[in-house]
Amino acid sequence: MGLQVDLNSDMGESFGAYRIGDDDAMLSIITSANVACGFHGGDPEVMAHAYRVAKANGVAAGAHPGFPDLWGFGRRRIPFSTGEIERFVAYQIGAAQAMAAYTGHRLTYVKAHGALGNLAAEDASVAAAIARAIKAVDPSLIMVAIALTRQVAAGEEAGLRTVHEIFADRGVGEDGNLIARGQPGAMIEDADQAADRILAMLRAKAVITSKGAHLPSPIDTICVHGDSAHAVGMARRVRERLEAAGVTLAPFSG
Amino acid sequence: MGLQVDLNSDMGESFGAYRIGDDDAMLSIITSANVACGFHGGDPEVMAHAYRVAKANGVAAGAHPGFPDLWGFGRRRIPFSTGEIERFVAYQIGAAQAMAAYTGHRLTYVKAHGALGNLAAEDASVAAAIARAIKAVDPSLIMVAIALTRQVAAGEEAGLRTVHEIFADRGVGEDGNLIARGQPGAMIEDADQAADRILAMLRAKAVITSKGAHLPSPIDTICVHGDSAHAVGMARRVRERLEAAGVTLAPFSG
Amino acid sequence: MGLQVDLNSDMGESFGAYRIGDDDAMLSIITSANVACGFHGGDPEVMAHAYRVAKANGVAAGAHPGFPDLWGFGRRRIPFSTGEIERFVAYQIGAAQAMAAYTGHRLTYVKAHGALGNLAAEDASVAAAIARAIKAVDPSLIMVAIALTRQVAAGEEAGLRTVHEIFADRGVGEDGNLIARGQPGAMIEDADQAADRILAMLRAKAVITSKGAHLPSPIDTICVHGDSAHAVGMARRVRERLEAAGVTLAPFSG
Amino acid sequence: MGLQVDLNSDMGESFGAYRIGDDDAMLSIITSANVACGFHGGDPEVMAHAYRVAKANGVAAGAHPGFPDLWGFGRRRIPFSTGEIERFVAYQIGAAQAMAAYTGHRLTYVKAHGALGNLAAEDASVAAAIARAIKAVDPSLIMVAIALTRQVAAGEEAGLRTVHEIFADRGVGEDGNLIARGQPGAMIEDADQAADRILAMLRAKAVITSKGAHLPSPIDTICVHGDSAHAVGMARRVRERLEAAGVTLAPFSG
Repeated sequence: MGLQVDLNSDMGESFGAYRIGDDDAMLSIITSANVACGFHGGDPEVMAHAYRVAKANGVAAGAHPGFPDLWGFGRRRIPFSTGEIERFVAYQIGAAQAMAAYTGHRLTYVKAHGALGNLAAEDASVAAAIARAIKAVDPSLIMVAIALTRQVAAGEEAGLRTVHEIFADRGVGEDGNLIARGQPGAMIEDADQAADRILAMLRAKAVITSKGAHLPSPIDTICVHGDSAHAVGMARRVRERLEAAGVTLAPFSG
Repeated sequence: MGLQVDLNSDMGESFGAYRIGDDDAMLSIITSANVACGFHGGDPEVMAHAYRVAKANGVAAGAHPGFPDLWGFGRRRIPFSTGEIERFVAYQIGAAQAMAAYTGHRLTYVKAHGALGNLAAEDASVAAAIARAIKAVDPSLIMVAIALTRQVAAGEEAGLRTVHEIFADRGVGEDGNLIARGQPGAMIEDADQAADRILAMLRAKAVITSKGAHLPSPIDTICVHGDSAHAVGMARRVRERLEAAGVTLAPFSG
Repeated sequence: MGLQVDLNSDMGESFGAYRIGDDDAMLSIITSANVACGFHGGDPEVMAHAYRVAKANGVAAGAHPGFPDLWGFGRRRIPFSTGEIERFVAYQIGAAQAMAAYTGHRLTYVKAHGALGNLAAEDASVAAAIARAIKAVDPSLIMVAIALTRQVAAGEEAGLRTVHEIFADRGVGEDGNLIARGQPGAMIEDADQAADRILAMLRAKAVITSKGAHLPSPIDTICVHGDSAHAVGMARRVRERLEAAGVTLAPFSG
Repeated sequence: MGLQVDLNSDMGESFGAYRIGDDDAMLSIITSANVACGFHGGDPEVMAHAYRVAKANGVAAGAHPGFPDLWGFGRRRIPFSTGEIERFVAYQIGAAQAMAAYTGHRLTYVKAHGALGNLAAEDASVAAAIARAIKAVDPSLIMVAIALTRQVAAGEEAGLRTVHEIFADRGVGEDGNLIARGQPGAMIEDADQAADRILAMLRAKAVITSKGAHLPSPIDTICVHGDSAHAVGMARRVRERLEAAGVTLAPFSG
């Protein structure tokens, strides 16, 4: 049987007159849409639009909760207790469920945004808080976790279906973590190189580090970006290359 | 069989360090809790607390969506389109569902807050927008409508179970509308007088106007306030008087 | 002596990661910068940048207060009392003064934004509230008023220096008001046509209506837009045409 | 000549319908009002009221800038760069200047709020950022610094007049820092004990630690709280005791 993978992208992050990203373009490329929930970006208008187009295009509906920090776009690590994180994530998941339902779609997964996602990858207590929030709101929701991070264990321990994510444009160090931005090898700018790397990982059933080490992990979904015209072009090219190699692109929640 | 009615109250309107009302006291008096959803008041911490105590006390869980206007506490009529209202109400309902679920409770109804509720009582298009939002998110949710207003018809036309509300402390004019604040007869300050009036309406199956006219309407729920120590005392006294008269107090959603 | 006029443009309306307009480009074209003050758009980072570049380019520093409505970008007419408007305008002016001072620049004028500006053009009580706010904070500040509107009288009655503004890209009806968007003649898309029309008005010392009537008014400043690449190009072309015709472009506050 | 000192208190922290503290009562007790600037609390209505009553009562007008965090009431240490802190403090000072001017009062000092103040006491780079903001907006403004902390040096190095503050209700450890809440000796609940301790410090021209050590420092102003009826009563009693002991209470900015 052939290889299959999901392409996910952050979207729905516009706010009122403020536009970020080209959601409609990305919704013609990806298979799972991580829609912001109004705390770090997004508003009910933007969310409804994203879910409506996702539904029309057969793209799975996800919630993308973040820190309550519109000014900082969810990129600041604001000191909240894990209980507070648990509750504001629950709130955002519910809002996303409602907006998906409003458009006739159905929310199937949750992926933490920005600083919250990074924190969940590093800090097991934050990852567990997010998992508890998901489970409390709807235990059938799937949790997206960056492959090889603490969030994987947190999702599994909570009994959630947990899918493993890699980034199309980010290098991985020998410890399995993303190479920090600004370091050599952090960014993969070339779409063909990115696609080749993804293919190698799918075939190896492992994350492949910068030096070529294989760190075994399922690979269920690939994060692509859509925040610039260049990013959209790269996402499209990655998709084309994967399809040309015989990989089936479909939502992990399908 | 004896008379039965519900007592509802707005709550969950605190925000961070800012406290409004005595939610715990009211949750020992009422049978249905209209919990603010974070737009005109409320936050995930406050919402979770209100739903948790409601669950423990056998009080029904409601959503109390309002205009996105924390500064104005939802009391300003901000010019939004009916489509925008529909979507921001849907968002808030979903957030409330999640927070109720988070505490092991279940959301059963929606009541519009402040300026949004007043607008829905007057303007059929706004009432219809709220009804559509409820229906899209969960058609089993009950809509609370002020008795004799346009919101009653909007709920029924949408196929929602619609319950009829009167206010313990507000007089009704001959046209069936609340007498505007500042006019004679607008406010009923005395708890015994309020209780007598409610009993008369329950027995008459009608709203009774200031001049004593009977305007037939089911009376399912009575709104009491809890925003001051005096208000809490009045709510408690109304409950005691109703119980002493043999009225069963129970959630309309029971 | 030759003709002289000012070119003003709204800017500083970005917010955190959200970008609107190309402020740096516009600051190489215009002579007065209307900088948003953090209520409908803008934040301290964005404001400081705009005033710093304005200072470097010899562009005058203005405050552009609006309704407290980031989601609506200041375009909704939110029902505030005139007293509330007066105070939130005063607040924004002070914030703008501080950010200008922070960069070594000096605030010299105030122009109301969006729905607040439109309201001030129509409603003398709102125009007077804005004038009172300016006067209370600093009576040496200049008020920008759309030519022929109620705001002109309000500024003059308050004893403020009041300058008269026309729009490069908007047609004027026979009553002296802007032709409503969507009506024929509302928008002037062609830069050369816009420049010719401005030149005619400067020479006539009058606003010229769509049908060619001359409504006498000083013309001190011309509003140009910078919210798209096309808008920036039009602003640049208008400037070039005015300069080619011998018009001196300089801040009205110079 | 007799002893003189200032009493300062935080106020103006209400927001819309949300009330915190009894500003009018405190403005009859204190000599300097630290008014919140709309970021962690406060709004233009609340600020104007506080400055108006302060003016009428001969109380000095201060700005009390904090983190942009209404939900957290400025108590969370949000990771901002020192440059960002510098600019958002400048913004808030300007807003406060305008609101003071609006009421006919004049802003004379700045005191950092909550987590920002605590951070400035510990971290010289944050203290310096606040000092730069003050200096850029108006170098005649006085900076309030907790006695013996890093903020004292930061203010003096910036060339600002810097006044030294102690807290009426907080014990000081042997290192000169406030004893952390929850530790023995952290809180001084009794007004007479607080007054005696303040008198001893004023006479000694030193901060006196829990164990009685004298740490030499000017003592210019004493912070009292007004966030509860008990706090207001304590502030009043401290004032009475100081006056009975012959201490003159007057603004440090007088």
